[in-house]
Amino acid sequence: MSNVYDAAYEMEKAIRASNEYADLQRLYEIVNSDEATKGMFENFRNLQMSLQQKQMMGQEIAPEEVEQAQKTVQLVQQNPTISKLMEAEQRMSMVIADLNKIIMKPLEDLYGLPEQQ
Amino acid sequence: MSNVYDAAYEMEKAIRASNEYADLQRLYEIVNSDEATKGMFENFRNLQMSLQQKQMMGQEIAPEEVEQAQKTVQLVQQNPTISKLMEAEQRMSMVIADLNKIIMKPLEDLYGLPEQQ
Ligand SMILES: [Ca+2]
Ligand SMILES: [Ca+2]
Repeated sequence: MSNVYDAAYEMEKAIRASNEYADLQRLYEIVNSDEATKGMFENFRNLQMSLQQKQMMGQEIAPEEVEQAQKTVQLVQQNPTISKLMEAEQRMSMVIADLNKIIMKPLEDLYGLPEQQ
Repeated sequence: MSNVYDAAYEMEKAIRASNEYADLQRLYEIVNSDEATKGMFENFRNLQMSLQQKQMMGQEIAPEEVEQAQKTVQLVQQNPTISKLMEAEQRMSMVIADLNKIIMKPLEDLYGLPEQQ
């Protein structure tokens, strides 16, 4: 399996060297360098995670929570640095999803597509 | 990002060429070549998935379901081919988990460890 690990370390190096990673690093530093922006972003992240967790647990999300989430999204989208960071995260997520698809292809070939949830 | 995709395709090739993958392929074919063994294994897989889904949704698992699951595990573990396949799957899962840890390291360095659930 050593070739597989070699390829993984190559991929790690290539991710660190990519423009996508550099963008993410730069924007994340800018967002964190301003206390107000950092707080707004953390607030948004925490809200997002708590809603995702509720959804995963099959818990109901109250209308006030949906409303608060929408307000928070509007607020962060008005911040140009945060919205650029979120776009950069989106691009990185798409790359990671592509990579996972490629890597998992051999197992998918063996078992067929995973059952629908 | 082309280097990252190159590395992913290298990893895919290395996985297909690995002994771990060959074992998995061979054992999966043996299990599927016998109708009774195949049925037993599918039964076990379906039960496992439905229990995992319930757990993820925060649904309660009835004592009869736990009992049935234990019986099914005992049954499949007595089948030498299925238990070898399950061991091979375990080894492959550990490799995949290692690879993911390596690949996700750059993002982990950026964001810190993910919050505890
Ligand atoms: Ca299937
Ligand atoms: Ca953190």
